[in-house]
Amino acid sequence: MQVGTVVGTVVSSHKHAKLHGAKLLLVQPEMPDGTPRGNALLVVDSVGAGIGERVLVVIEGKAAGDALGRKGAPVDAAIIGIVDALETEGAW
Amino acid sequence: MQVGTVVGTVVSSHKHAKLHGAKLLLVQPEMPDGTPRGNALLVVDSVGAGIGERVLVVIEGKAAGDALGRKGAPVDAAIIGIVDALETEGAW
Amino acid sequence: MQVGTVVGTVVSSHKHAKLHGAKLLLVQPEMPDGTPRGNALLVVDSVGAGIGERVLVVIEGKAAGDALGRKGAPVDAAIIGIVDALETEGAW
Amino acid sequence: MQVGTVVGTVVSSHKHAKLHGAKLLLVQPEMPDGTPRGNALLVVDSVGAGIGERVLVVIEGKAAGDALGRKGAPVDAAIIGIVDALETEGAW
Amino acid sequence: MQVGTVVGTVVSSHKHAKLHGAKLLLVQPEMPDGTPRGNALLVVDSVGAGIGERVLVVIEGKAAGDALGRKGAPVDAAIIGIVDALETEGAW
Repeated sequence: MQVGTVVGTVVSSHKHAKLHGAKLLLVQPEMPDGTPRGNALLVVDSVGAGIGERVLVVIEGKAAGDALGRKGAPVDAAIIGIVDALETEGAW
Repeated sequence: MQVGTVVGTVVSSHKHAKLHGAKLLLVQPEMPDGTPRGNALLVVDSVGAGIGERVLVVIEGKAAGDALGRKGAPVDAAIIGIVDALETEGAW
Repeated sequence: MQVGTVVGTVVSSHKHAKLHGAKLLLVQPEMPDGTPRGNALLVVDSVGAGIGERVLVVIEGKAAGDALGRKGAPVDAAIIGIVDALETEGAW
Repeated sequence: MQVGTVVGTVVSSHKHAKLHGAKLLLVQPEMPDGTPRGNALLVVDSVGAGIGERVLVVIEGKAAGDALGRKGAPVDAAIIGIVDALETEGAW
Repeated sequence: MQVGTVVGTVVSSHKHAKLHGAKLLLVQPEMPDGTPRGNALLVVDSVGAGIGERVLVVIEGKAAGDALGRKGAPVDAAIIGIVDALETEGAW
């Protein structure tokens, strides 16, 4: 899974029928210390996340479909949790 | 998922039986601000997208097969929506 | 999916039982204009492709198994079509 | 699979129902000689690993769900073993 | 799939129950000409490969589980064959 922050939304009125009503968000992946890394991810939301919240993202088709709770939904990434705290040891 | 723009088409008359009639398109992935990034993707279309349209692409075998709506189709990427608007916060 | 050209063959007499008789080919991925990019892929063939032909490759386990038409075959990439034409717009 | 060392924990009280009670850990991937490489991975634990232990990590949705032993859990990476010894030949 | 050479072994006595008895090997991926490339892969063996042998590796959860022949085994990479010969055309 990845840790990141919700930074945007995507609107798509003409989309696959199995995505109707799904909330599409942009998430910026981050290092554990909060430094952004890599490109923003386009994900579906399964926990009611909002702009600016730090979230857990799963990146895989079956897992994302499971998160959305829709059998056969064509998705490959989903928010599965809100991060309360992240603790690391050492200087990496 | 990825955001990108449809930039080309691929014709293949000799292909796997489960792909007959499927529309094959080339999509250039983009940053949220529209800047191209990485290599073009070869995808199947599930929403009737055309050249120049900004689209949502799912990249994973099960999800792409779900998008095409054909059980057992050998595909790994599919267009699943047309982008109406994309809004971001902050300066990433 | 990826576009590439068949550039070699691999012979393996001692292999997983579900791969017996499968043709193993090396494919060099290419940009739409034919420029090689990245490393050669080792794939199974599902359409009777030969050395020098430009092909469509699917890269994902379920999809590759579907292409081979063998349930439970341990494969992750397969040729699914021969490219007749590839047309792009713009200067990417 | 990947070899790495557990370097942190993530707390998420508001998460997908199928993740309740799952332990979320941060793992730093390593070269066989122990040199860190790449970014830390966020994984679920299936063997009772703790901070500082060297572990085996599987990175794939179906496999991670299998590791967790929960059908339909939205996860994409999991610890599947503790490393006792790692022996290599040659100078790579 | 990938071509590589077996360069090491990993011992893990405390691991997921579905991995008991599985042989864990380190494989160094190679270019078709034998040049090493990228990082070593941690894989399960399905064909009885040994140190120094050139092998075919499949990298995907479902495929690796199929190779191991254990339903629900949490693995993402497996050796599926021994390479007898690898022939390429051209100067790539």
